[in-house]
Amino acid sequence: MNREDLEKIAVSVAKSVLEAKALPKMSLALAKKIIARVEEEAARVGVNAVIAIADKSANTVAVVSMDDAYIASYDIAVNKAYTSAALKMKTVELAKLAAPGGSLYGIQHTNGGKIVIFGGGEPLYIGGELIGAIGVSGGTEPQDTALGAFGASICEELARG
Amino acid sequence: MNREDLEKIAVSVAKSVLEAKALPKMSLALAKKIIARVEEEAARVGVNAVIAIADKSANTVAVVSMDDAYIASYDIAVNKAYTSAALKMKTVELAKLAAPGGSLYGIQHTNGGKIVIFGGGEPLYIGGELIGAIGVSGGTEPQDTALGAFGASICEELARG
Amino acid sequence: MNREDLEKIAVSVAKSVLEAKALPKMSLALAKKIIARVEEEAARVGVNAVIAIADKSANTVAVVSMDDAYIASYDIAVNKAYTSAALKMKTVELAKLAAPGGSLYGIQHTNGGKIVIFGGGEPLYIGGELIGAIGVSGGTEPQDTALGAFGASICEELARG
Amino acid sequence: MNREDLEKIAVSVAKSVLEAKALPKMSLALAKKIIARVEEEAARVGVNAVIAIADKSANTVAVVSMDDAYIASYDIAVNKAYTSAALKMKTVELAKLAAPGGSLYGIQHTNGGKIVIFGGGEPLYIGGELIGAIGVSGGTEPQDTALGAFGASICEELARG
Repeated sequence: MNREDLEKIAVSVAKSVLEAKALPKMSLALAKKIIARVEEEAARVGVNAVIAIADKSANTVAVVSMDDAYIASYDIAVNKAYTSAALKMKTVELAKLAAPGGSLYGIQHTNGGKIVIFGGGEPLYIGGELIGAIGVSGGTEPQDTALGAFGASICEELARG
Repeated sequence: MNREDLEKIAVSVAKSVLEAKALPKMSLALAKKIIARVEEEAARVGVNAVIAIADKSANTVAVVSMDDAYIASYDIAVNKAYTSAALKMKTVELAKLAAPGGSLYGIQHTNGGKIVIFGGGEPLYIGGELIGAIGVSGGTEPQDTALGAFGASICEELARG
Repeated sequence: MNREDLEKIAVSVAKSVLEAKALPKMSLALAKKIIARVEEEAARVGVNAVIAIADKSANTVAVVSMDDAYIASYDIAVNKAYTSAALKMKTVELAKLAAPGGSLYGIQHTNGGKIVIFGGGEPLYIGGELIGAIGVSGGTEPQDTALGAFGASICEELARG
Repeated sequence: MNREDLEKIAVSVAKSVLEAKALPKMSLALAKKIIARVEEEAARVGVNAVIAIADKSANTVAVVSMDDAYIASYDIAVNKAYTSAALKMKTVELAKLAAPGGSLYGIQHTNGGKIVIFGGGEPLYIGGELIGAIGVSGGTEPQDTALGAFGASICEELARG
């Protein structure tokens, strides 16, 4: 192989590697960063939240329950993260499909009680790739939805940072 | 017994036997054939589906989860097949009965979370006899319903083939 | 950047890429290949087996129930695959740890009934990387263990082939 | 086709048909007969039993709870019938395999709480073919085992009768 061949290969190879390196993936480090920021935001708006992060396989990576959070919020937050990872969908959108008359009415009963059909679960993406999901519970449904959406909005930046 | 008696018996006997031999039944071989064709069709329409086949006793015979299918689709597909075998009914028809105001409203709670009340589950018949059911999950509800119906439509032909 | 620098980079880059390309992963295609071979082997030794494959996240990818398999074997095979993926361990080894007096005695109660503590579940590896697990049920415990181990032993070859 | 050919066919055909007609199968009529006799026997030995019959797919066909039977016996009897059908095994034999040190230790946790590992569940056979199972609960374990075994012992005779 001469230098010119090598050069050509190296360019395409380097490109692949850079892409491979950027292959987005949930990690505990990233989950902690997202949780920390959502926790701050929850405190700012006066919500004692449970915040859960799942990986793209819908397995939970980390959960925090802020002091005085609702006991029930633990399961709800974990299940919201499960739902958004397992269906690649915001739970606030699933709410519409799962409502009486919706095309997925009844879906909350199909997965052993793990599907949540109200807001607060949001898929997490990097570069358009699903890497997991966040679930937030503890405030009103609009508050949980906003906190989840906030977590989703900062995911890519925190992953790159 | 003389020959004429024997002849008469033989005719009716032969008829019964032919019917008995044709007694339709789910098998792993048939389940695999149906799955393979539905998988092809799902790929053609761009759906990453989970496809499950149950026998007439509602026990699962085979399941495949296409790459990148929703995690949640696994339970949903298996439960759609269960529902259609256990109620001898398309889940898209059950949807009407199970809707608020419908005569079976609430049925999704009666069987340990295994009843699915939206489309994608279809009974499988051979010669008018229920032999099992198919459950498909992964696309929109109309897509799942169409894929399940496709599976049901080719069952008899694949069983004979 | 001159050619010599480029050459050095290219060599290390190429190495990384080759490693990246070889990144092993469960797929439905691979799961089907493993199942087909284990099914053949089960037939050869006279076992009507249920054979399940999970990915490394312990989500089920495919299951087949051979004709006349035990009804109970379905859940057991699926749960064996779950257990070996979720604990990165052969279930025949977990049996020792989970026995009375063992360090994990009681572990069968901790995961919602999904942990199996007898043989037939085996992790699947490619190049030393866990990519999923197989669960087999239907024969005696030594038969299930042997069939699971057979599945594990051919995984890498089938993945490369 | 001449008479001699017909005669030969008729003989083999008649044989097949007789075998086909004898194809053993659980029915509600048979389940009731078995239950009636086991109930009599339970009364005779002073046990208020719950008696359950499952078909070969392990689905329950009929259950009776004698007056003053233990509340808990209902689930136990149903699950004993499930276990013996689903594993094609007497639960009193499963007890040995599922005991600490046995090859199936832990199996009681693998099927959603439906596997019972003490006596009283017995497979039901006709002509060597499994057609279902009986589960009895309400007495001591030896009493339940004896009542289940009694039910199994009269199955074939009641089916023919």
